Amino acid sequence: MQYRRLGSSGLQLSALSFGAWVTFGGQIPRGTARDLIAAAWDHGVNFFDNAETYGNGAAERLMGDVIADLRLPRDGYCVSSKVYFGAVDEPRPTQRGLSRKHVTDACHDALKRLRVDYLDLYYCHRPDPDTPVEETVWAMDALIRQGKVLYWGTSEWSATQIREAHKVARHHHLHAPTMEQPQYNLLHRERVELEYAPLYAEYGMGITIWSPLASGLLTGKYNAGFPEQARLGRQDNGWLRKLVIGEPEQHRVERARRFTALAAEFDVAPAPLAIAWCLRNPHVSSVILGASRVEQLLQNLQAIDLLERLDETCWHKVRVVAA
Amino acid sequence: MQYRRLGSSGLQLSALSFGAWVTFGGQIPRGTARDLIAAAWDHGVNFFDNAETYGNGAAERLMGDVIADLRLPRDGYCVSSKVYFGAVDEPRPTQRGLSRKHVTDACHDALKRLRVDYLDLYYCHRPDPDTPVEETVWAMDALIRQGKVLYWGTSEWSATQIREAHKVARHHHLHAPTMEQPQYNLLHRERVELEYAPLYAEYGMGITIWSPLASGLLTGKYNAGFPEQARLGRQDNGWLRKLVIGEPEQHRVERARRFTALAAEFDVAPAPLAIAWCLRNPHVSSVILGASRVEQLLQNLQAIDLLERLDETCWHKVRVVAA
Amino acid sequence: MQYRRLGSSGLQLSALSFGAWVTFGGQIPRGTARDLIAAAWDHGVNFFDNAETYGNGAAERLMGDVIADLRLPRDGYCVSSKVYFGAVDEPRPTQRGLSRKHVTDACHDALKRLRVDYLDLYYCHRPDPDTPVEETVWAMDALIRQGKVLYWGTSEWSATQIREAHKVARHHHLHAPTMEQPQYNLLHRERVELEYAPLYAEYGMGITIWSPLASGLLTGKYNAGFPEQARLGRQDNGWLRKLVIGEPEQHRVERARRFTALAAEFDVAPAPLAIAWCLRNPHVSSVILGASRVEQLLQNLQAIDLLERLDETCWHKVRVVAA
Amino acid sequence: MQYRRLGSSGLQLSALSFGAWVTFGGQIPRGTARDLIAAAWDHGVNFFDNAETYGNGAAERLMGDVIADLRLPRDGYCVSSKVYFGAVDEPRPTQRGLSRKHVTDACHDALKRLRVDYLDLYYCHRPDPDTPVEETVWAMDALIRQGKVLYWGTSEWSATQIREAHKVARHHHLHAPTMEQPQYNLLHRERVELEYAPLYAEYGMGITIWSPLASGLLTGKYNAGFPEQARLGRQDNGWLRKLVIGEPEQHRVERARRFTALAAEFDVAPAPLAIAWCLRNPHVSSVILGASRVEQLLQNLQAIDLLERLDETCWHKVRVVAA
Repeated sequence: MQYRRLGSSGLQLSALSFGAWVTFGGQIPRGTARDLIAAAWDHGVNFFDNAETYGNGAAERLMGDVIADLRLPRDGYCVSSKVYFGAVDEPRPTQRGLSRKHVTDACHDALKRLRVDYLDLYYCHRPDPDTPVEETVWAMDALIRQGKVLYWGTSEWSATQIREAHKVARHHHLHAPTMEQPQYNLLHRERVELEYAPLYAEYGMGITIWSPLASGLLTGKYNAGFPEQARLGRQDNGWLRKLVIGEPEQHRVERARRFTALAAEFDVAPAPLAIAWCLRNPHVSSVILGASRVEQLLQNLQAIDLLERLDETCWHKVRVVAA
Repeated sequence: MQYRRLGSSGLQLSALSFGAWVTFGGQIPRGTARDLIAAAWDHGVNFFDNAETYGNGAAERLMGDVIADLRLPRDGYCVSSKVYFGAVDEPRPTQRGLSRKHVTDACHDALKRLRVDYLDLYYCHRPDPDTPVEETVWAMDALIRQGKVLYWGTSEWSATQIREAHKVARHHHLHAPTMEQPQYNLLHRERVELEYAPLYAEYGMGITIWSPLASGLLTGKYNAGFPEQARLGRQDNGWLRKLVIGEPEQHRVERARRFTALAAEFDVAPAPLAIAWCLRNPHVSSVILGASRVEQLLQNLQAIDLLERLDETCWHKVRVVAA
Repeated sequence: MQYRRLGSSGLQLSALSFGAWVTFGGQIPRGTARDLIAAAWDHGVNFFDNAETYGNGAAERLMGDVIADLRLPRDGYCVSSKVYFGAVDEPRPTQRGLSRKHVTDACHDALKRLRVDYLDLYYCHRPDPDTPVEETVWAMDALIRQGKVLYWGTSEWSATQIREAHKVARHHHLHAPTMEQPQYNLLHRERVELEYAPLYAEYGMGITIWSPLASGLLTGKYNAGFPEQARLGRQDNGWLRKLVIGEPEQHRVERARRFTALAAEFDVAPAPLAIAWCLRNPHVSSVILGASRVEQLLQNLQAIDLLERLDETCWHKVRVVAA
Repeated sequence: MQYRRLGSSGLQLSALSFGAWVTFGGQIPRGTARDLIAAAWDHGVNFFDNAETYGNGAAERLMGDVIADLRLPRDGYCVSSKVYFGAVDEPRPTQRGLSRKHVTDACHDALKRLRVDYLDLYYCHRPDPDTPVEETVWAMDALIRQGKVLYWGTSEWSATQIREAHKVARHHHLHAPTMEQPQYNLLHRERVELEYAPLYAEYGMGITIWSPLASGLLTGKYNAGFPEQARLGRQDNGWLRKLVIGEPEQHRVERARRFTALAAEFDVAPAPLAIAWCLRNPHVSSVILGASRVEQLLQNLQAIDLLERLDETCWHKVRVVAA
């Protein structure tokens, strides 16, 4: 495994990390969850990503149980939560968003579910237009001073919103956000590569990225279309399909097809290739992997090896094909 | 139910909330209290207002018991306390006011009575001429940093006093007051509409208002005078009658009579009409309702519907008649 | 009882308070201690003064036991401790002084002995030339922010040292000292009336004074000399005798004699007269009384009445006779 | 014993202190450890130095057990820990260094092992190029505010790095480092006497020094070379031998030989003489002694007496001989 500093901070995350999104919310049995976390840990993964909204808290409870069961040393791994969407189906107004109340309540709830004394990373899962940034920054700072959170950050905030948070933190001598969690993959590059560009140096911002496989699109499994029972095919995941594929839909699917063809040419699986491509960006601290089977996880973990195995010419081809 | 942000803060309160004042201090049986809170909650009320002095702590104890009994989710509702008057009949000098000692003691006592880990809102129930504002602001800020209070505010402070608190908070990087709790109703408008006018934009101040019915005057029940057993008729409530009716007494009673006549003309009960009128002021975050019977509460909750049911012409007539 | 604000703070102390010095360190039985505290409380005393060094902690333990036994309401009384001299006979270097270590340890020890969650007042018993003022101010501020202390102050610090503490506090946004505890009586006036004069307005400094009777000199009991078994006669109290009587010794004794003669002329006991004289100084927040018998305490508590009973002519005579 | 302030702070450490390095990590039996600590305490030692990495936590556990067993008064002694190297053989990336995570985790672990509520001193055992100084200063400040640490410092940081920490602390009103723990002895003087020279006055920096005997070189036991079973002879201690002896090796050994000859001339043991020489530097707050036998410790403690017994002529000779 490779380890990278989270931006300019002193926290070193494994370049590949394990996320509970999608899979831990109820889909997989406890034994499989245990095997997945154990396999990740054994391969050097030290960051386990979660959020209050994944399975309405079920993902955090499952992960907390499994980590406790495996007796991982608390100082050796990092665990995260994210606050914004709430952990119930129809949240009341104070059960979601980034008010001091929800940020605080959600932290306490996540600590209980994950069975830890502190969250290593705590993200604002989205910007909240109905809460002043100042209130959220103060609330995050308080949690850090109380020892309940080590590093706080954002997810899918605009560069302008992130700047605003830093301004507030500097003015009041508060802890500024350390990291962002954006979507990033071969088909979705603008925010990470353009919008955030000045923030890396200016604030030492680190990023932990989600959806390195574009929700499976880059594995080639949708090359022939979206079967109804697949993630991107399901009725209720229309929002996700739209977000991943974007407009015009056909264009992205076409690029994904070219990419998987190139992977075949290199004689590597497309998934680890897509993941390795993300790791080539030095601003990426960690790529979050989701997996519902151990073999799938192990395949994705091979991305680390690809980084060295493929030469610049190969990477150039990847860039061209996916553009 | 409608929800509104508490000023510019991220906390969303129900536009109508439930207050323990008068009724919870010993007048009503526990079963009724339970029914009232349950009905309010079922209709979307998420803010339950209280104070150390209501029934000398009895109101907070009753509310705390009932909320625990109903198992309301802690992140779904807000509860307040207010400090100043003390919670005993003849308070000793350190058992009242806004000194760091009483502000701190009263908070801890309210937490125990209300059976919660933190107060969502904590008000200075009056200004204290015998404590420097600086001392109170520091004490409130400390409680917020310790996680015992989320938002602090004032009740019946002058605009000048509120400004002073903000000045102190800004200078020392402390949490500034978020809200005020003034009296506000058709017959008592000056402070909210004139004195506080610049504060809403300047500090993002929110207001939660008490006595929307002018202690019952606007329900029409005193149209024929003040019976001895009624609230405004009772000997020991002379101060309240004077405060509500003001001078000249007859003038206000006359306006209340004209208002109830107009309500009859609209074919609506006067109480929800008076409450709805308060909600028409966009600076009002929440109107606090008192009730000793469930039917009374349900009637008052209809104010929300009136907001949409009545047109501008109607509201214009209300304004004229009550002037 | 009369109550006075502690300087410009919001804390209201009884003008007469009860101190454990001398008497609670082992001299008096537990039953008497209980009677003394009960009598003081019944007469409106709300401030009980103590220090780690009084009886090496024994005075605090006794007071803590008695107050717990009497079930005084925590929000109704104030208790203090003082740090500097240590609570053992031959303190090791870290068991005395104003280092962060000793200030913190001594606070925790006093909390246990006094059986309370916080000290209302916490004094630096003397200036410590071997600790930078900055370190002590930070340590005191931390205790206040942690809720273990409400107000901190000094005892027998020079005006210059007090100013220094305020400068540090202002620069770093820390809690500044609120009060001083100097010696003050008819025979010892310079520090309180001259040296501290500018501090009252400038910092809102309050003072709680010790030795209003000049260790008994003003009661007249030493008019005929110092018997060996009396406090000021005891071998080991030479330091106290010298401090109280000063130089030239005979001069002060003579003034005390004239004073007691004047008290006889007014037909009042000299002790309450001397105490009342201290209370005439509006900067004095509280005069600390020591007593080993209830009757003695009750007599001293009459000082409050004398304040009103004697006219300006009388007070003028007192001033002249003691000069 | 002599006591010295830790730089300009108010903490008074014994000029000679006891360190767990080397000996407590597993080499010595529990009974001996108890005898050593007891003897040190009886001779006035009040500072017991430790680190997470000494015996991977075993040294702290042993010391914690022994101190608890001896019932030393918590306010009478000081105990330290140091963070950086981790407490396991092959630390994972988050189990070492000066990130907020490891600084915090390591503190909590040390508190448990040492069985105390707070660390008197907490050192950054080395500078961490992979963590911004700002992050470490904030983390240390938080531990102090939470009462878990009293004074924080550094060990083997460059003057530039120490300055940087002070700059951050001043800007954000945080607790600055109080002390350094450098190597210092007759053969290793440059850092303490030259590099740090301006820091003593500028920041009131105190130093607690390790290796006053140059890992035994100055006791004369290596005058005839390095036997394989001796500390500086062991295969795995090549790094230490090189650090202590420096280049050119023979030169230092020669100086050590001249020094031991001089000690013989004075008729004193070389070890206490070398220790006493360190104490002649007024910037040295405490010299940390290691010992595996009580007699050895007692001999070294004689350094205090030598300070007075030897005159300036003697010290001049020492200086010349060791140059």
